[in-house]
Amino acid sequence: MQNKPLILITNDDSIHAKGLHKLADIMRQFGEVVVIASEQVMSGMSHAVTIKTPLMPRLTREEDGYKEYITNGTPVDNVKLGKHALLERRPDLIVSGINHGSNAAINIIYSGTMAAAIEGAIDDIPSIGFSLDDYNPEADFSHVDPFIETITKKVLKEGLPEGICLNVNIPKKSEKAVKGIKVVRQAKARWEEKFEARTDPFGRNYFWMGGVFVNGDPRTDTDEKALADNYVSVVPIQFDFTANQALRQFKF
Amino acid sequence: MQNKPLILITNDDSIHAKGLHKLADIMRQFGEVVVIASEQVMSGMSHAVTIKTPLMPRLTREEDGYKEYITNGTPVDNVKLGKHALLERRPDLIVSGINHGSNAAINIIYSGTMAAAIEGAIDDIPSIGFSLDDYNPEADFSHVDPFIETITKKVLKEGLPEGICLNVNIPKKSEKAVKGIKVVRQAKARWEEKFEARTDPFGRNYFWMGGVFVNGDPRTDTDEKALADNYVSVVPIQFDFTANQALRQFKF
Repeated sequence: MQNKPLILITNDDSIHAKGLHKLADIMRQFGEVVVIASEQVMSGMSHAVTIKTPLMPRLTREEDGYKEYITNGTPVDNVKLGKHALLERRPDLIVSGINHGSNAAINIIYSGTMAAAIEGAIDDIPSIGFSLDDYNPEADFSHVDPFIETITKKVLKEGLPEGICLNVNIPKKSEKAVKGIKVVRQAKARWEEKFEARTDPFGRNYFWMGGVFVNGDPRTDTDEKALADNYVSVVPIQFDFTANQALRQFKF
Repeated sequence: MQNKPLILITNDDSIHAKGLHKLADIMRQFGEVVVIASEQVMSGMSHAVTIKTPLMPRLTREEDGYKEYITNGTPVDNVKLGKHALLERRPDLIVSGINHGSNAAINIIYSGTMAAAIEGAIDDIPSIGFSLDDYNPEADFSHVDPFIETITKKVLKEGLPEGICLNVNIPKKSEKAVKGIKVVRQAKARWEEKFEARTDPFGRNYFWMGGVFVNGDPRTDTDEKALADNYVSVVPIQFDFTANQALRQFKF
């Protein structure tokens, strides 16, 4: 008898996030689900791993076809813990999210949610990161199901090419219906930070990081453009950082 | 009168690392140097940024053409702090390292040292990450000067293409002389983790992450091969994660 697919879920907004539980609810129709998520918010943790301290996962919920672990690790730690310590077998799929906030364009590099999906790809496990373009902790996820289901079914059935995962961003809920799914490129957009300088009660200077997101990419086939046009964006993602087009430009 | 180049230095092994001070010593011949480094070890922090707490840099040393700040942030925070809060003008060069340990192959994705260089590239500042293939905190850096000087001089003179930084790895000091510098690709090699399970004094299970590095990449033009052949490896690095070759494979 064929086992049901084993699906590992994590995120970077912590075990308490609405988006995580929405994703778990959707995934339970597709297989056996194990959630391994951080106790604390891990937004902006990127591909960080914990090497100075031990990891201590706790099984906090177990019912038919569903388990939930809370950890003191990062999203990438959670994937590694799943693969090597907590899961009884290699997962068939890793899904990360649903992130509260866009991971389109350069946001991917800071995102713990997308790092978890990339970590899956490093180990050749089909992996998808899902994000909603809405930072509100109480965001409305009621429109996301058909898009997540379509993409998940296809990946469960066909797999993904070696070394590639998907970065899926879903427009914020609005009165207009989402128009569909577009496969696009990562936009060249970035944050322009502003550091607000303050003085603490002891006279020491400190800074809070803030900033504005600036998209100067004129191309029409980018994730930012798809989201602006009310499409779900899907970017196939790789973890080879080599700028192949520049290899011949350098000689030392 | 032309200003001397302004060079921002950071790393992920902390302000206390031998490699950081070696790099600062080399850079002082090229311009005005500002070190902004973390008080604590930030190895494995990747592109993490601090968004839950404020950053508190402290100026701890100042002499002619040289400043040193200690921070409570990550390597990427340090670059952002430099650009937006601490430096009097936009830096002409960002150098990160010298990392204690290789950042070749997949190590780049976990590395705070390389993330700092990539953060520079995101803001179109010429940036280089330097690493020594030796994890020893007391590593011998006596052979690195000519290679770092050659690469730095070229980048200061010619700049780097938009959106590209350099990942430079230097072989460990040995009896054999380093043969030269090779411009190569990121090897497809990865860590195979092992989690050692232990029990704490209160009966709770915990795990330490460990693992072995496995290079199964047969290509001869990779960073791992260059290092194995006793060459300095230089990989041009980009931060566009799009798997362009896969764009047409997907349709939803």
